[in-house]
Amino acid sequence: MTADPSRRPSSPPNRRRGPGRPRGGSDTRGAILEAASTEFASHGYDKTTVRGIARAAGVDPALVYHYFGSKEQVLVAVLDLPLNPAEAVAGLLREGMDGIGERLVRFLLSVWDSPAGRTRFLALIRSALTNDAVADLMREFFTREVLSKISKAVQAPEPELRASLAFSHVMGMAVARYVLRVEPLASASADEIARLVGPIIERYLIPSP
Amino acid sequence: MTADPSRRPSSPPNRRRGPGRPRGGSDTRGAILEAASTEFASHGYDKTTVRGIARAAGVDPALVYHYFGSKEQVLVAVLDLPLNPAEAVAGLLREGMDGIGERLVRFLLSVWDSPAGRTRFLALIRSALTNDAVADLMREFFTREVLSKISKAVQAPEPELRASLAFSHVMGMAVARYVLRVEPLASASADEIARLVGPIIERYLIPSP
Repeated sequence: MTADPSRRPSSPPNRRRGPGRPRGGSDTRGAILEAASTEFASHGYDKTTVRGIARAAGVDPALVYHYFGSKEQVLVAVLDLPLNPAEAVAGLLREGMDGIGERLVRFLLSVWDSPAGRTRFLALIRSALTNDAVADLMREFFTREVLSKISKAVQAPEPELRASLAFSHVMGMAVARYVLRVEPLASASADEIARLVGPIIERYLIPSP
Repeated sequence: MTADPSRRPSSPPNRRRGPGRPRGGSDTRGAILEAASTEFASHGYDKTTVRGIARAAGVDPALVYHYFGSKEQVLVAVLDLPLNPAEAVAGLLREGMDGIGERLVRFLLSVWDSPAGRTRFLALIRSALTNDAVADLMREFFTREVLSKISKAVQAPEPELRASLAFSHVMGMAVARYVLRVEPLASASADEIARLVGPIIERYLIPSP
């Protein structure tokens, strides 16, 4: 599934049966994704609701929860993300703040260094940086589902600003490594990068003694 | 002048008089810029020469030096940069390493926070992130003229990797602030940002005691 939220289908497929009617499994899932892609592109992340996605897909909201579990997971499927960033960050935070920077960087590089992860990252960042609707969608999603979790874990003044700066660094690191291919960052091992960047990220998240 | 190095003119203007002939001032400067734009887009920064630009423009290389002073300055003019990043970094380094992080961030924000600076940054970063030739050009320019100067000033192991990571952070900060508009980074004052990011950048450039 590679639905692009910036591309609204001119004639929505899979909507021939009308609202509320029962439908087959993969067909229904596809219809929900197609409808969600349009809803997210039109209304952004915050204002899109599971109810609105269901209405646009012509299904009961319970079916959206059945297939995806949450609005967050619907967007992860629409954007074809290799993982749910909100769940990944929650998992890292559950392991505690000790060494969180290095664990975060190692984890992100393990995703992005894979050919599929890199391809998906490149497509998404290019889309976000050239299409305001995609940028709005990504910002709202990351602010609400990812940065809020990080902010809550920051034990220092200005936790939200610190979280957004840590986010900006890992994103900039990825853009420099994968898009601009600045050396030696582009060729450095995940290990070398994590050792240098990890403590820097931690300095944003954990107050220095 | 807003020549886009990714756009090769289909029929080069100002080349009717043939190589080596004398020509008027602003006309010559424009012809050099037009030729340079094509040369940089075709060959990248490293392989483009002042001699090659002069030949493509049909002028003597001395005229290129007369109008621009260096290949570096020709690219700054082609990209319509509000300033020469290489000269700016050299100036900051001349003031010493004490407080270099905060001075660097304050300086960059003073450029990018202005409407003209922000517009130019947005255009360039979008161009670099969607056009491989522009990405190659920017990478070669920044590596050769900017990051090399920073690397030389780093008194720590892996100076080049540290310089590229510091670069990735300030670029990511700008993308998050101006393109994705992640809050509270997008609305924070230059002062708030410089106080937080400055010491972080310094940690890349100066070894901790």
